[in-house]
Amino acid sequence: MLGRVVGYDPDASAIAAAVRKGVIDEVAASPEEVVRDASLVLLAAPVASLRSLFARVAPAIGPDATVIDVGSVKTEMVATAAIEFPRGQFVACHPMAGAEFSGVESADADIFPGRVCFVCSPSNARHACVVAARDFWSGIGCHVADIDPEVHDRVMAAQSHLPHVAAFALAAALAPDLPFLESHGTEASPTTSLRDTTRIAASGPAVWRDILLANANHLLPLVERLQGRVDEFRRAVADGDGQALERILTAGQTCRKRLVKE
Amino acid sequence: MLGRVVGYDPDASAIAAAVRKGVIDEVAASPEEVVRDASLVLLAAPVASLRSLFARVAPAIGPDATVIDVGSVKTEMVATAAIEFPRGQFVACHPMAGAEFSGVESADADIFPGRVCFVCSPSNARHACVVAARDFWSGIGCHVADIDPEVHDRVMAAQSHLPHVAAFALAAALAPDLPFLESHGTEASPTTSLRDTTRIAASGPAVWRDILLANANHLLPLVERLQGRVDEFRRAVADGDGQALERILTAGQTCRKRLVKE
Repeated sequence: MLGRVVGYDPDASAIAAAVRKGVIDEVAASPEEVVRDASLVLLAAPVASLRSLFARVAPAIGPDATVIDVGSVKTEMVATAAIEFPRGQFVACHPMAGAEFSGVESADADIFPGRVCFVCSPSNARHACVVAARDFWSGIGCHVADIDPEVHDRVMAAQSHLPHVAAFALAAALAPDLPFLESHGTEASPTTSLRDTTRIAASGPAVWRDILLANANHLLPLVERLQGRVDEFRRAVADGDGQALERILTAGQTCRKRLVKE
Repeated sequence: MLGRVVGYDPDASAIAAAVRKGVIDEVAASPEEVVRDASLVLLAAPVASLRSLFARVAPAIGPDATVIDVGSVKTEMVATAAIEFPRGQFVACHPMAGAEFSGVESADADIFPGRVCFVCSPSNARHACVVAARDFWSGIGCHVADIDPEVHDRVMAAQSHLPHVAAFALAAALAPDLPFLESHGTEASPTTSLRDTTRIAASGPAVWRDILLANANHLLPLVERLQGRVDEFRRAVADGDGQALERILTAGQTCRKRLVKE
């Protein structure tokens, strides 16, 4: 499906690892150089750096190139891209595949087959570019689903960004217990509860800082609600109030069963 | 390893299911009757009902019987058991195996092999009973680990009870988003982030009400810390404060990597 893959990264060690792993065939020296002859340009960069990347890449691409990304937040980016790519060559993409590990060393082609890839077309997107973007994701096994950027960001706030806040907050809350837990060695080997609830807290802080800030409008009310629910727990536990506890536990269970059908 | 298994449950449908599944060989009509000729008595009852069960079971058991439980909180229960079982026949147990599903319909013998089972011996425990308890868990494949009841409850507060609070609070916080998420159908199929972070929120509210109340002393300071961390997130997102966000995200990531070595 792919021809030659040319790669660029500001971090030379990432480039070296990509060559060693066979992820790229050739190395370029700058964003401008790497896109020059490309038919498909994939910007796998953190959300916060995409805007400056657009300004460098847009003037350097060929007239028939398609530019896609894999960012986790879409509304503002799609609006920016419609301006930066006046010929409609940008198509925003977000594959629902990933892990708490990042970097080319963790690259794994097997995470894509069977997963949804969201595609948001900016208002000026050229049809041929949308088709090229969809074909790329289908070609590596994803189910492509069109989505409105606002809907995307609201869905992601609920399904991904708030869960990350909860997981990082939970892990950070346990910091003072680490010496105690570690001094009890194997007795304190992690439960599956702890393992699953904190898994995504192993994700990269810089990437998540950018995602949470980029989606602050949708995320903030959810964080406030999470805080309210934790406060309900705190009061019920402090008061020994079994009825209040059961109420919020039941609300959580009911919601979980609707969120994740098994 | 086991001889005849005689079962009792206040819920007749649970008894019927246990017979149908082949979990028990014979049915008894009361707690007193079910324990009468037993060499090993396993009290698989919620933490809050164990105390009243002790009072009924202790006078009814034979002189050489061993009584064990599977409760999630130990300190107070072990102290009570030392009084209720003056001949030292009770040994507190907690297998680190389970799921978010409960009831005999979800019974699954395969969850035990390779997992730790904590054993807390009350101060008056008879050696033969401790051996019988350990042999039972070893016999179904568990690694038996002795633990002090206070240490157990503090470890569980951090590794299980606070994660449950976080998972239930997260799921409950998303309740107002359910109509939106559900109206977007497959677009909003759950992410693995949401699935993992809320998995244990599918657990039974009544069981967890009792566990959280029984371990309130150890749990409350952790819930307060979780609330503090969520509040840090709220302020950082509201202020667009990338440095504060990165600080707490890094704290969470560092802690997760020490909690769960992979």
